[in-house]
Amino acid sequence: MPRKNAFYAQSGGVTAVINASACGVIETARAHRADIGKVYAGRNGIIGALREDLIDTSKESAAAIHGLLSTPSGAFGSCRYKLKSLEENRAEYERLIEVFKAHNIGYFFYNGGGDSADTCLKISQLSETLGYPLQAIHVPKTIDNDLPLTDNCPGFGSVAKYVAISTKEAALDVASMCETSTKVFILEVMGRHAGWIAGAAGLAAEEEGDAPHIILFPEIAFNHKKFMARVQRTVKRFGYCVIVASEGAQYKDGTFLSESGVKDAFGHSQLGGLAPLLAGMIKDELGYKYHWAVADYLQRSARHIASQTDVDQAYALGKAAVEYALAGENAVMPCIERGKGKRYRWSIGKAPLDKVANVEKMMPRNYITRDGFGITEPARAYFAPLIMGEAYPDYRGGLPVYVKLKNHSVERKLKRRFKV
Amino acid sequence: MPRKNAFYAQSGGVTAVINASACGVIETARAHRADIGKVYAGRNGIIGALREDLIDTSKESAAAIHGLLSTPSGAFGSCRYKLKSLEENRAEYERLIEVFKAHNIGYFFYNGGGDSADTCLKISQLSETLGYPLQAIHVPKTIDNDLPLTDNCPGFGSVAKYVAISTKEAALDVASMCETSTKVFILEVMGRHAGWIAGAAGLAAEEEGDAPHIILFPEIAFNHKKFMARVQRTVKRFGYCVIVASEGAQYKDGTFLSESGVKDAFGHSQLGGLAPLLAGMIKDELGYKYHWAVADYLQRSARHIASQTDVDQAYALGKAAVEYALAGENAVMPCIERGKGKRYRWSIGKAPLDKVANVEKMMPRNYITRDGFGITEPARAYFAPLIMGEAYPDYRGGLPVYVKLKNHSVERKLKRRFKV
Repeated sequence: MPRKNAFYAQSGGVTAVINASACGVIETARAHRADIGKVYAGRNGIIGALREDLIDTSKESAAAIHGLLSTPSGAFGSCRYKLKSLEENRAEYERLIEVFKAHNIGYFFYNGGGDSADTCLKISQLSETLGYPLQAIHVPKTIDNDLPLTDNCPGFGSVAKYVAISTKEAALDVASMCETSTKVFILEVMGRHAGWIAGAAGLAAEEEGDAPHIILFPEIAFNHKKFMARVQRTVKRFGYCVIVASEGAQYKDGTFLSESGVKDAFGHSQLGGLAPLLAGMIKDELGYKYHWAVADYLQRSARHIASQTDVDQAYALGKAAVEYALAGENAVMPCIERGKGKRYRWSIGKAPLDKVANVEKMMPRNYITRDGFGITEPARAYFAPLIMGEAYPDYRGGLPVYVKLKNHSVERKLKRRFKV
Repeated sequence: MPRKNAFYAQSGGVTAVINASACGVIETARAHRADIGKVYAGRNGIIGALREDLIDTSKESAAAIHGLLSTPSGAFGSCRYKLKSLEENRAEYERLIEVFKAHNIGYFFYNGGGDSADTCLKISQLSETLGYPLQAIHVPKTIDNDLPLTDNCPGFGSVAKYVAISTKEAALDVASMCETSTKVFILEVMGRHAGWIAGAAGLAAEEEGDAPHIILFPEIAFNHKKFMARVQRTVKRFGYCVIVASEGAQYKDGTFLSESGVKDAFGHSQLGGLAPLLAGMIKDELGYKYHWAVADYLQRSARHIASQTDVDQAYALGKAAVEYALAGENAVMPCIERGKGKRYRWSIGKAPLDKVANVEKMMPRNYITRDGFGITEPARAYFAPLIMGEAYPDYRGGLPVYVKLKNHSVERKLKRRFKV
């Protein structure tokens, strides 16, 4: 029997280091040519498999594949496409198996968050039922850091670093201007359900009085009165106030602030954007001059200031996924385990996918200060090692060198087309 | 007669490298102790002089002063405070002379943009009239890059680098997601009247089809229909569209797209919020899923990815200012002169302040493509060397090490207080 090929796909929002995991998968597979044939990647993620639109990564040079280690975003394309449940759309799963069979694929590496862990598990189960067993391994990835069983998720450490540095830098700017100008600065960051990213901004504060002075977490119900009082108190005490707001900040009833239908300071209806909304509230009630920034994709694509720890872990998890596959594992996810003791150590562990799928890990309450506006020492101890090290890319002409793969298509083998 | 002291102040919006100029001024003055006494800095800029609130920089260690080279924002505080004209408020100018006289200050170094060049010139003129001659030297600084007679302005190169890198990174993100998700990404950047910053984002495009696909300049009247057509055409052709919009984008009649009605101390409108506005327009008319980011202060404080060229020039201009003062110059501004020839070379030149004050340098029309949405080869040739080199700061614990000065006050000598 010929060696089985492998299939790799990127899923959901991309990160600064998801390609480092791809690099780990492909380089490790190449190092085991006797056991693994080619690595095919899904063009635009799982829909590439559904459409039988596969990329032949064997056409890429070793240098190009290695370049993935320092290239942000998804080199093969990713997608937001959640497979329906088996009951609702069994045809999709059957199609995947059909495509995998046609291309002699025996290993399925799915690089994503909670939804893709669930998909990965289902494919593993169904492939068995359909008599074409696949080894399905999930490679964790999400800036939201909300997967269970892993100490942290690749992608998060780099966003955390970006957000902490940006907060520190913008705060210095505001501090030096506040006597006559901007008194309040708001940085809106990602994190719809969990406040991990906003929390990491707390690392910017190294001494009493340092920014950020207020962090808004999705986990803590927004209290308008308490918030305004804190802004005012901070400006009176330190001359300025820096706020880091998670886009998922919400009222007690679960309504997002940014979806509350409130109009901004200028009477324009809100087009999305918590930062301008908060700025408008503050201007109206306290009269302070403000500035605000929305980092949006900049935060998750900022490979130029990625965390070395994050890059190392993303690569190691891709590598471990292939090693697990070679060891005969199925329906598992390599994860990060943190060693005990004061000095940070990490190693790769193994989590069963049925324990990972569809579980969201929130910030523990003891990571957030009692008043709900800051992070505690345990949180700092958790976050600090994740932003360690600066994994600078190479530069040419003042700009980072990011690889562009050739992404050659694999010849189709199936007559049937599948509409996605 | 005892050696004269020097006074140094930071003015207007701070940058990633204004402290590098401060470093150049202070280190050079320290190297000429026989000629220059102490360097006093204005706390929060020129209002520190009006209030007789001076900082004694001689209390800072050599290491702390050297740390300014890699510390963003204004280490002594800056301000948005425009002195009125001599006719309107002669008292302010007289107060400055009074304070300078009381502290035996013979050298006035003012580090700012166009408004402060004007102030610097007036102080030089008035000091003569009042019989207390001062040597007033302006040290250029503005991310807006709009000062005349200098090839470029310190602070701009680093913003340019940040904006080009961020555009490149965010574009990779969008490109990898556009099949099923975001099709349009808008990055709003600074630049009220001149499109230099937005233009620099054009460096991110290295090949045909690369982002940014559309740049909106203040210099080019916004044409709604043409803009929408271009967005649609780009999405159809490349699958996605990345737009970099200058906050100063305006209609033919000069109204800013994002006019907010709030004005700052200089009477400039406070802008912000153009990105969500454009996103809303696009969603309404073309239905594309969008994301947007507003970099705001992040772009001008991003010392973590400052341009080495910019840092070198900022320092050199501070140094040159002191050397000009020692050579007996008055009412001048050291500036950057670009050498001829293909290889980039720069040197320090000298511009008379009366030719600098209140002149704004816009993007030349031949730097902008005929269609008004991009930059030309001459523009690329102009911008490219300004972002060269990565002047990384030191890191500790995953965060950049930025100095915090002690900022000891100089004892007051005047009885009279001056309200600012």
